Amino acid sequence: MTQFQFQKTRQDGKARTGMISTPRGDICTPAFMPVGTAATVKAMMPESVAATGADILLGNTYHLMLRPTAERIHALGGLHKFMNWDKPILTDSGGFQVMSLAGLRKLTEKGVTFQSHIDGSKHELTPERSMEIQRLLGSNIVMCFDECPALPAERDRIAESMRLSMRWAERSREAFGDRPGYALFGIQQGGLEEDFRAESAEALREIGFEGYAIGGLAVGEGQEAMFRCLDFAPDQLPEDKPRYLMGVGKPDDIVGAVKRGVDMMDCVLPSRSGRTGQCFTRHGVVNIKNARHADDPRPLDENCSCPACSNYSRAYLHHVFRSQEMISGMLMTWHNLQYFQDIMQDMRDAIAAGTFAAWEADFHAGRANGDIELL
Amino acid sequence: MTQFQFQKTRQDGKARTGMISTPRGDICTPAFMPVGTAATVKAMMPESVAATGADILLGNTYHLMLRPTAERIHALGGLHKFMNWDKPILTDSGGFQVMSLAGLRKLTEKGVTFQSHIDGSKHELTPERSMEIQRLLGSNIVMCFDECPALPAERDRIAESMRLSMRWAERSREAFGDRPGYALFGIQQGGLEEDFRAESAEALREIGFEGYAIGGLAVGEGQEAMFRCLDFAPDQLPEDKPRYLMGVGKPDDIVGAVKRGVDMMDCVLPSRSGRTGQCFTRHGVVNIKNARHADDPRPLDENCSCPACSNYSRAYLHHVFRSQEMISGMLMTWHNLQYFQDIMQDMRDAIAAGTFAAWEADFHAGRANGDIELL
Repeated sequence: MTQFQFQKTRQDGKARTGMISTPRGDICTPAFMPVGTAATVKAMMPESVAATGADILLGNTYHLMLRPTAERIHALGGLHKFMNWDKPILTDSGGFQVMSLAGLRKLTEKGVTFQSHIDGSKHELTPERSMEIQRLLGSNIVMCFDECPALPAERDRIAESMRLSMRWAERSREAFGDRPGYALFGIQQGGLEEDFRAESAEALREIGFEGYAIGGLAVGEGQEAMFRCLDFAPDQLPEDKPRYLMGVGKPDDIVGAVKRGVDMMDCVLPSRSGRTGQCFTRHGVVNIKNARHADDPRPLDENCSCPACSNYSRAYLHHVFRSQEMISGMLMTWHNLQYFQDIMQDMRDAIAAGTFAAWEADFHAGRANGDIELL
Repeated sequence: MTQFQFQKTRQDGKARTGMISTPRGDICTPAFMPVGTAATVKAMMPESVAATGADILLGNTYHLMLRPTAERIHALGGLHKFMNWDKPILTDSGGFQVMSLAGLRKLTEKGVTFQSHIDGSKHELTPERSMEIQRLLGSNIVMCFDECPALPAERDRIAESMRLSMRWAERSREAFGDRPGYALFGIQQGGLEEDFRAESAEALREIGFEGYAIGGLAVGEGQEAMFRCLDFAPDQLPEDKPRYLMGVGKPDDIVGAVKRGVDMMDCVLPSRSGRTGQCFTRHGVVNIKNARHADDPRPLDENCSCPACSNYSRAYLHHVFRSQEMISGMLMTWHNLQYFQDIMQDMRDAIAAGTFAAWEADFHAGRANGDIELL
């Protein structure tokens, strides 16, 4: 049986390429993980997600534990079979979404009790329960159960929360047990504070994980503050393990994170934006509902290989968006996921060629030029 | 250039197989046409519609003339290119949907004026304008502009309406002109009245069309009344031209219509039902939202080749329906369209083998047995 392994292959500045090997297949890094919240990447067939080049999906413990429940998915053969995705799956721990979605939360040393946002039923998540749920789902990369304060917050509050997460990280490691081929990732916390981030990284290194995530960013602090934190946070984590920046982000966030040594990311942005008519392109964001597209026979992006760009005009995409047809979300989600995977591939190629800085300059120049001119 | 042609190939009782040849490709009959109202079969990629075996789609003149407009579609290269469907398209005339959807209608000898249900704008449809719109769309099979009363209606009202439609049929023929490779179909009216249907058929024959539709059924009269009418209506139409029963229907309606000599049908039912969790199977209708499916690892229909049945459990379909995920409508629409195309193929095979009656008995027996038993 293949073990879970990470091999760094190339480096250009702090940006790095690598390969994560799992029994479910390999993951080329830097990797972007589409989000399959409720056992589906919204508006996409899983084979279409794979066609964009995604090597791994993210599933949400919070959503799946409430509906259809982890026990049910386990009885049905696990999340991969349930949702027809046989490549690797990473699941979050549920901690972040409990804090952002659930009702009537109560946080103690033991864990969190909360009410379901769906039906108000009461539930508990602890490090032990989160490990059990992620095991029942069959997740290949399991995340430690953690807690993270909204930013800005007082230093005391940030430190207290980080230290609780580190105690939970130890309990998560203990509860995860020995599972060859599966990985447990620790999550660094500490807000934007370099000393707390260092303390957190040290605590996690001491426990020992197969990978290390940077948590608690992309929670409203803004890109500049996030990048300042990413100037030191990845360096505090082990160099020979994958580094995963959680919940990021916009294309320029992703490029800036890779530049700073991040290997993995996830975000709902490409799929959510696809459903609201926001399309990411080399020329920046195109808002397809804008009337300027109504008669435009040109593709969204002539260099994109996705079905939306290969088979349809902007006029069609505009029409089906305005008509609220499902194919609108289907096509534009596909396009956005393709664009995100394309920039990951571009960055992997540029890092391998030692031309990341030039690629990054091109990336920003293309966006600065703006959308193609009106006909 | 291929002409528009119909060749009857086999007959079993009144049921018949045939082939319609068009420059856009052949249509095996009996044929079921999925409905692509607003230039999309809802929740489906066009290549997926083709994968179910559909040879032809139906487009709605009323919807397309209002949004994005026929002139815009024409400027963009026609409906086939616009919606990425290169096989034949049949368009209705707009008449029926003006009567069922538009506001403030006014009917005169000349045509109908009405207000858009989208933005209240004023429009006019006449036989001449309907022919122009269908030409601008690039429709391969164009329908005469007609008018049809809701049933039940007084005999006088039915006769008056039918005779107006016959005058409009003549104006449609005149306005359609000489368009090699394209077809114009006349529409028989006359309610459930055999004498009016005969009068209408005679009027249409005299004008001469490439095919003949049976209009004014499936408008609330019930299956028994519709079948009584279909016991004579198809026989009144030319035997060597395709016969198209408009807006039908449920699987047993379709089987009963084919049995009575109908060659073509269309209906929104498979796609609309797919979005509301109603799945058509050999065992009858399965309502996926029913709690009995929540833990069921079995496919919707083990004999169906569609992605919903090949790749997913009933439990998954139940979950994504309850979670209101788009993949729910995508998978169940695909299944329903596959089922409809499968019964068309089955009927074509049975007619060719001279075993239609036995096939029909099996069809009804399978439905009478009901859904598979609980585990």
